[in-house]
Amino acid sequence: MIKNIYFEVETKKRRELVDITEKLKDIVLKENGSGCINIFVPHTTAGILINENERGLKNDILGVFEKVVPENEKYEHNLIDNNADAHILSVIVKNNSCIPFSDGKLLLGTWQSVFFVELDGPRHRNVIATLIK
Amino acid sequence: MIKNIYFEVETKKRRELVDITEKLKDIVLKENGSGCINIFVPHTTAGILINENERGLKNDILGVFEKVVPENEKYEHNLIDNNADAHILSVIVKNNSCIPFSDGKLLLGTWQSVFFVELDGPRHRNVIATLIK
Amino acid sequence: MIKNIYFEVETKKRRELVDITEKLKDIVLKENGSGCINIFVPHTTAGILINENERGLKNDILGVFEKVVPENEKYEHNLIDNNADAHILSVIVKNNSCIPFSDGKLLLGTWQSVFFVELDGPRHRNVIATLIK
Repeated sequence: MIKNIYFEVETKKRRELVDITEKLKDIVLKENGSGCINIFVPHTTAGILINENERGLKNDILGVFEKVVPENEKYEHNLIDNNADAHILSVIVKNNSCIPFSDGKLLLGTWQSVFFVELDGPRHRNVIATLIK
Repeated sequence: MIKNIYFEVETKKRRELVDITEKLKDIVLKENGSGCINIFVPHTTAGILINENERGLKNDILGVFEKVVPENEKYEHNLIDNNADAHILSVIVKNNSCIPFSDGKLLLGTWQSVFFVELDGPRHRNVIATLIK
Repeated sequence: MIKNIYFEVETKKRRELVDITEKLKDIVLKENGSGCINIFVPHTTAGILINENERGLKNDILGVFEKVVPENEKYEHNLIDNNADAHILSVIVKNNSCIPFSDGKLLLGTWQSVFFVELDGPRHRNVIATLIK
C-alpha cells in the first residue's frame, strides 16, 4: 500500500530547524503497519535533516552552514533573486529522507529527531510524506 | 508494484548539471498511478540533485563544489586515478533521491528540477529509476 | 512486500568507513526478487555513504570531513557532549540511502561499495534495512 500525505509547516526565521517528528509519529501511528515513510520537501530553499534536537547543536549546524555557504558572498543567482545561499545549502542538506517504521512506530534512534530545514524563511511550506507499507 | 527502469545520460563537460526532469516526467506519466520513484546513479563520480534550473545558480553550485573540494588539491586517490575530487563530491551530493508522484505526475515543487550531476565527465552514464506504486 | 531487517556493525576507530556491501548483498540474495532496499542508520553521529572502496580515497574523504568540520573547533554542543563534529558530519553525510536490486542482486555500479560511516566511535551500531519488493 502506498499513500501520499500532505502537511504544512510555518517557519519564523530565515534559517531555522523546525522539529516535525511528532507530526510524522502521528501519521505513522494513524496509518499503522510496517514499512518506510519518505519525507519530501517540494521547495528549492529548504530541506530535511535527521539529528538530535539540542539547542547548542542546532546553532552549531547553522554555524557550519554559514561557514560553507556564507549568506553575504557574491553569487550569480543573486542578480535574479537574493537567496543563492539558500538554494546551495538545500542541495547540501537534500530535500528527502526515507525512515522505516514498525507496528505504527517510527524506527528512529533514541537521539534522532526529524527537522524541516528552512533556509530562506519565514515562509509557509509544504511537506509530502509517502507511506510505503 | 515495483519496477526498475533504466536510462542513459550523455554528459559533455567534466563537472556539469544535466536536467533529467522531462525524462522522469515521461516515465511516471507512462506508468501512471501514485507512489514514489527512487532515482539511483550507479557511479562513484556522479550524483543526483534537485533544485532550480537557473544558469547563474548552476554556476554558483559548481562554485561551492570547487571551494569545498578543489580539483587541484593533493589527494591520495590521485596516485591511482586522477579524480579524487569527483569521488568526494559524489559523497557530498549523494547518488539517490526518492520523489513522490500522483496520478502519473511527479510532485515536484514549482521551482524544482532534477539534475544528473556529472563530476568527472564527459562520459556515458546510466540511471536506475525504481517505480514504487 | 515490505520487510524491515536489522543488523549490527562494530566500529573500531573514532572516524571510520566500514564496508557493509557483502552484508547487504547477502540480505538481497536471501530475500530474492526485485525492488529497492532502504538503508537507515538510527544514530546521530554516524551515516551511510556509497563510493569506491580504495584506501587512499577513504583517507581523502575523511580529510575533507576534517577540513569542513574540524574535530577541535569550538562548538556549543561540546558543553554537553564532546562530539558536535560527529553530529554535524552526520547531517552532511546523511543517514539513509535507497538502492535498487533485481533478481536477488544489488544494482550497484562496478566501483560502488556501501559504507557505514562511523563519526564518533568505536561503538556498537545498528542498521535497519527496509526491503521493498
